[in-house]
Amino acid sequence: MKPNFENYAVPGFLANGIHAGIKEDRKKDLSLIFSTVSAKAAAVFTTNAFKAAPVLLDMERIKSGQAQAILTNSGNANAATGTGGYQDALAMSRSLSQRLGIRDDLVLVASTGVIGRRLPLKKIESAMGRLIKGLKPEGIPIAEEAIMTTDRFSKIAMRKNRIGDKDIILCGIAKGAGMIEPHMATMLSYVMTDAAMDGTTLDAVFREAVAQSFNAISVDGCMSTNDTAIILANGMAGNPLIKGNSKSLAVFRGMLFSVLSDLSQAMVRDGEGATKLIKVSVRGARTIGDAKKVAYAIANSNLFKAACFGQDPNWGRIIAATGSAGIPLPVHAVELYFEGIPVFKKGQGISGNTKKLSKIMGKDDIHISVHLGMGSKAFCLHTSDLTYDYVKINAQYHT
Amino acid sequence: MKPNFENYAVPGFLANGIHAGIKEDRKKDLSLIFSTVSAKAAAVFTTNAFKAAPVLLDMERIKSGQAQAILTNSGNANAATGTGGYQDALAMSRSLSQRLGIRDDLVLVASTGVIGRRLPLKKIESAMGRLIKGLKPEGIPIAEEAIMTTDRFSKIAMRKNRIGDKDIILCGIAKGAGMIEPHMATMLSYVMTDAAMDGTTLDAVFREAVAQSFNAISVDGCMSTNDTAIILANGMAGNPLIKGNSKSLAVFRGMLFSVLSDLSQAMVRDGEGATKLIKVSVRGARTIGDAKKVAYAIANSNLFKAACFGQDPNWGRIIAATGSAGIPLPVHAVELYFEGIPVFKKGQGISGNTKKLSKIMGKDDIHISVHLGMGSKAFCLHTSDLTYDYVKINAQYHT
Repeated sequence: MKPNFENYAVPGFLANGIHAGIKEDRKKDLSLIFSTVSAKAAAVFTTNAFKAAPVLLDMERIKSGQAQAILTNSGNANAATGTGGYQDALAMSRSLSQRLGIRDDLVLVASTGVIGRRLPLKKIESAMGRLIKGLKPEGIPIAEEAIMTTDRFSKIAMRKNRIGDKDIILCGIAKGAGMIEPHMATMLSYVMTDAAMDGTTLDAVFREAVAQSFNAISVDGCMSTNDTAIILANGMAGNPLIKGNSKSLAVFRGMLFSVLSDLSQAMVRDGEGATKLIKVSVRGARTIGDAKKVAYAIANSNLFKAACFGQDPNWGRIIAATGSAGIPLPVHAVELYFEGIPVFKKGQGISGNTKKLSKIMGKDDIHISVHLGMGSKAFCLHTSDLTYDYVKINAQYHT
Repeated sequence: MKPNFENYAVPGFLANGIHAGIKEDRKKDLSLIFSTVSAKAAAVFTTNAFKAAPVLLDMERIKSGQAQAILTNSGNANAATGTGGYQDALAMSRSLSQRLGIRDDLVLVASTGVIGRRLPLKKIESAMGRLIKGLKPEGIPIAEEAIMTTDRFSKIAMRKNRIGDKDIILCGIAKGAGMIEPHMATMLSYVMTDAAMDGTTLDAVFREAVAQSFNAISVDGCMSTNDTAIILANGMAGNPLIKGNSKSLAVFRGMLFSVLSDLSQAMVRDGEGATKLIKVSVRGARTIGDAKKVAYAIANSNLFKAACFGQDPNWGRIIAATGSAGIPLPVHAVELYFEGIPVFKKGQGISGNTKKLSKIMGKDDIHISVHLGMGSKAFCLHTSDLTYDYVKINAQYHT
């Protein structure tokens, strides 16, 4: 993260987070991001067939390309709650829009927490006045705190840049530590910017950035019912509209990619029980799809992840995972590297590097790179190790 | 297992296992199964792109449909060893065939253990005389012991039945505890029978039985480079040749399915660190392929497996895994049961069963059943829980 900003304020955005009583401890569990004007909006959601009620509602609303508020509760996912749960999501939204005096369909809602329980609507409704009253420009980190569940630290990133003669600010927050893969599981991320953006361009660049950040990480290979990433661009910077294939879009894209990259890597680093951030690069593939298959086969191999925790340069497990990806490989062309040191070439291991490799495996950040020798496509993803604490967190977490 | 037989002898088969010095402790590491006559043979191998040298050799040899010996070393997988490793597999085979005076291409070889190291050929060759000298009819359990790696207990099963007016015996052994899925990873299994079998029929029924046993279990979703399942039928029983779609084939199939079912479930129960045997049934699918996808999505969900270890009836994780299988589901038709008790129907959880469900999760054997409401196809697999010991075993196992 870059803590170079005095506060994480974005012109035209107010935010707040409070404890409404959804979580049993005293932690914050209700979060609001509010743009003083209706903003251009784009979003990406979980591809899980069992989408939570708030996801189903947002998928309808985002079609307009406009939104003004993101209301989130933590502690309850409002997932697997049937039609009643959908009504709860609507009621939660209405409770906010009526008090704010904005159009109800400009409210996006999100929920994260335990699955299968109905929302404590009364608690949410009776906390709404307090939530709105506390809205403030410097409230984004507080709103971020209120969307956390098992997260151990805050995830917030910000960039400033010039577009035309205007300063543009882009700030993103995220939550998520487990159940992350392959499509943004149990993760929420909201990006606020004061840039003036063409709606179609915003949607395209956001999808592209999400694909290379939140959809290129894996903690445990599990996919949630609630994943949501939203961007709001309220245009308060007054810059010339960013659109098409312009130079200003390139600047904006750079800011957005950089913020989402920070946030997604922070999620892996905060992965449940994680002690390491592992980068898996797959190069020399025939297609990006092939590269992805191999990268996920490695990143989701419990044997490889446990070896990382044990700091063991067990390249045999990486080769076995590579070979299990379902791609017909030219086995004598495949090469494997640890931080640039070759460990496998021409169908066999390269010995004599044990000390160097052990040193690499002892680091907090590890880079594994596989060259398939089939083409020029590549895919890179980040994952974490499999530890006692991962098992502990997920065996002790009770429904 | 069924310990109802005084010894696990099969007419015409001799076996032995010894310590040749491949493993560093004093455990047995060289195993031989020998049929006194050339037997009809069939085999199924790993689908991993990086097949170990012995697998590559056996794949060639099994084409003849005949074999007489299975020579296995444990402690070294002879995998990722390049062309030199292939030469080692050939040399190991030749060392046996010359001493036994049999055709070299009737020897099948297998290796299991650490990846990426060359076989200690001299040790193997100098132990060969001792291995052969000790061959005996009651040696099958000793041969089984010598193929074990991280296994905590022996896996051996036997059935006897009448075909025509002859007694037929079928005995199977297996090793494997981790890296099991979806195609028989780091597992070896050998089946010996004195039945007289048509070769084509033997191949077909063995493939069918393997698909529903060894290929329907998952410990950790990892696939090995060395998996091998072999059946030898030496015809010593003198029964009328079993072939086609006969009644005698039905009897033989029953014996074979039952033995492989015992062996495969024993592997899951012995899964690295496992405390539970979990049966996942998926019914009501449009195709068997769809049912498999859902079953593996559940069985390989670390979140679900950790919840089983924690004895928590966390059905939300099963629903999330089901939804992540990549199949467009009729979410309101999907139903989930724990040992026949409904926990999820019509898109929402069914409350009020907490005590019963907690009791179920406390058992050693758990049965989870999902009905997709899309058709009539089904798939059933067995898996284990994710425990501290799984992480410990795989983090501490050093290359």
